[in-house]
Amino acid sequence: MYREQIKVLDCTIRDGGLINKHDFSDHLVREVYKALSASGVDYIELGYKNSRKLFSPKEYGKWKFCDDDDIKNVIDGIESKAKISVMVDIGRVDMDDVKQKKDSPVDMVRVACYVKEVDKAIAMMNNFSEKGYEVTCNIMAISKAIETELNEALHQLEEQTSAKAIYIVDSFGSLYQETTEFLIKKAKQYVKTKEVGFHGHNNQQLAFSNTIESIIHGANYLDATIYGIGRGAGNCPIELLLGFLKNPKFDIRPIYDVISKEFIPLLNKIEWGYFIPYAITGMLDEHPRAAIALRAGKDKENYREFYEGLVGAQ
Amino acid sequence: MYREQIKVLDCTIRDGGLINKHDFSDHLVREVYKALSASGVDYIELGYKNSRKLFSPKEYGKWKFCDDDDIKNVIDGIESKAKISVMVDIGRVDMDDVKQKKDSPVDMVRVACYVKEVDKAIAMMNNFSEKGYEVTCNIMAISKAIETELNEALHQLEEQTSAKAIYIVDSFGSLYQETTEFLIKKAKQYVKTKEVGFHGHNNQQLAFSNTIESIIHGANYLDATIYGIGRGAGNCPIELLLGFLKNPKFDIRPIYDVISKEFIPLLNKIEWGYFIPYAITGMLDEHPRAAIALRAGKDKENYREFYEGLVGAQ
Repeated sequence: MYREQIKVLDCTIRDGGLINKHDFSDHLVREVYKALSASGVDYIELGYKNSRKLFSPKEYGKWKFCDDDDIKNVIDGIESKAKISVMVDIGRVDMDDVKQKKDSPVDMVRVACYVKEVDKAIAMMNNFSEKGYEVTCNIMAISKAIETELNEALHQLEEQTSAKAIYIVDSFGSLYQETTEFLIKKAKQYVKTKEVGFHGHNNQQLAFSNTIESIIHGANYLDATIYGIGRGAGNCPIELLLGFLKNPKFDIRPIYDVISKEFIPLLNKIEWGYFIPYAITGMLDEHPRAAIALRAGKDKENYREFYEGLVGAQ
Repeated sequence: MYREQIKVLDCTIRDGGLINKHDFSDHLVREVYKALSASGVDYIELGYKNSRKLFSPKEYGKWKFCDDDDIKNVIDGIESKAKISVMVDIGRVDMDDVKQKKDSPVDMVRVACYVKEVDKAIAMMNNFSEKGYEVTCNIMAISKAIETELNEALHQLEEQTSAKAIYIVDSFGSLYQETTEFLIKKAKQYVKTKEVGFHGHNNQQLAFSNTIESIIHGANYLDATIYGIGRGAGNCPIELLLGFLKNPKFDIRPIYDVISKEFIPLLNKIEWGYFIPYAITGMLDEHPRAAIALRAGKDKENYREFYEGLVGAQ
C-alpha cells in the first residue's frame, strides 16, 4: 500500500522561522525535534545557514544561522533516526561556515534558488557534496518560471549534480492539482537519476492536496510542517500528511502531543494559517509580502481594498 | 475556459446553522443574501424545512424551519438573480409545511438522505417536484456507502426522479482526490440525464481541492460557504471556489466585504475551521460528533487521548 521511497522532511523551524526571524527558544526546538524523531519522519530541517555579515544576530534568532554547536546542544540526548537538514539561499551563505560533514551534525544541505540562479546553485551544491553532505535543489517560485528556462534548469540539475532530490516549490501557493501534475510530470521527465520533491504553501488550502497530487505523479521527497506553520498561510500540515501515508514506520501521536503543548500556545504569539489576504496573493500568483504587510498593520481585515489594489481596480 | 453548466450553491446559513442551531440574526442573513446575490452565485440555501413537532422554536432559530414569510422578510428589496434553496431531511419535515411553489419564494428543495433511505427520498422528491420545485438528492456519508447499494440508489434516482442534480456528500471529510474521482465517475456513469453535484467537508483541508477534483471529473453543482463556515471543520470556502472558476459572471469582492464585516466578528462567537479533532475524525472516516463534543468541553486540546480513544489504543 505504501511507497518505500517516500521521504518526509519536516521544515517547521526553518519555514516557521520566517514568521519570527528564527527566534525560537531552545525549549521549543528541542520539543519539536523530540516529537518529530518519535514520529519517524526522515529529515528535520532546523533552519538556514545565513551569513552573519548579512544578517545581524542581534536581530535574528540562532536558527537563522544554524551553528553546529547550537544544533548539537538542542538535539543532545534525544534518540533519533532522522537526518538533520539546513537550507541555504544563493548569495546569503559564507561557504566557509559549512564545515566538512564529518565534523558536523548536519546531514543534508538544501539549496534554495530561483530558476535563473541555477548555475550558482549547482556550484554550491557540488561544493557541499564534496564536503560530504547530501544535497537538494529547491526551485522556488516555480509558478513564475519560464518553461524553456525551467526545462534547461532541470536538465542541468540532472546532469551536473549528485542531488538526492530536485524540489518543485510552490512559493506563492498558487498551484492547483492540474498545475502540480504538470510540473511534477515535467520534473520526472528530466530528473531520471534523482528523486523529485514537492514543497507546498497553503494560501488556497491546497498545500496538502497538492502534496498528495505530487505523490500520485511520482514525487518522493515531501515537505511539511507541524500544524502547517510557515510564512503567511503556512505549509502542508505534517499531521495530515502522516495520516495519509500508509508507511507503518510513522507514528502520528507525538505530533498531536507537540501541537497541544507547544503550537496551540504559540498561535497566541505569532500568526499563520488561512487568512483572506494570503488567499488573494495565492489566487493572483503573487509573492505574499503585501499580504504579510497588511496582516501586520491596523487594516488587516480590509480585504476588498487589498484585492482591488493588487488587481489595479478603480 | 469555463463551463457554462457549472452552478454554485452557497449553503452558508444552512450548514453554518448546524453550529448555532440556526439562530442567525435577520441582519446577518440579509447581509449574506445581499453579498451572495451581488457575487453572482446561482443558488442560496437559507436553511432547513424542519418540523416544529420535532424541533422546538424555543430551542432553534428560524432558519431551522425556513417559513416562507421569514424568507420573504429577509430578502425583501434586495436585487438578486440567485435562486433560493432549502434542505429537508428524511422523516424530519411535515410535507404540508411545503406549499405549492407558486405561493413560495423557494425555488429548490434539496433532500438529504443516506443511501438506505433513497426510496423515501425519491417519494419526497417527487412530491416536491409535483408542487413545482426544482429538487436534488444529496447522498450523505458517501464514504460509508456499500458500493452495490450506492449503485442501485444512483440508478433509481436517475430513473425515478426529475432531479436537477444528484450530490455526492463527503459528510465526514474523509475523501481524498482519488476517492473523489472514483465517486464522481461512478455517479456520472449512472446519472446520465441529470447533473452530478459535490458537497465537501474540510476536516483534512481538502474540501476545496475535492471540489476542484469533482469539477475535473464532470460535477457541475458545487456547494460552498462563506469563509468555509459549517459544522465542525466547515465546508469549501466560496471565496476560493469563485477565485478558481473562470466564469465572468462571478464577482468575488462582495464576498470579501461580508467576510470582513460579518464573519471575522462571528468567529469570536462560534467556532469552525481546521482543528485537530476534526482532522482525526476525517482521517478515520468517522462522524464528527465526538470531535464537536471534545471542542465544546474543557479538554478540547487533548488530541492524543481523543485519537487513542477513537482507534482503541491502550
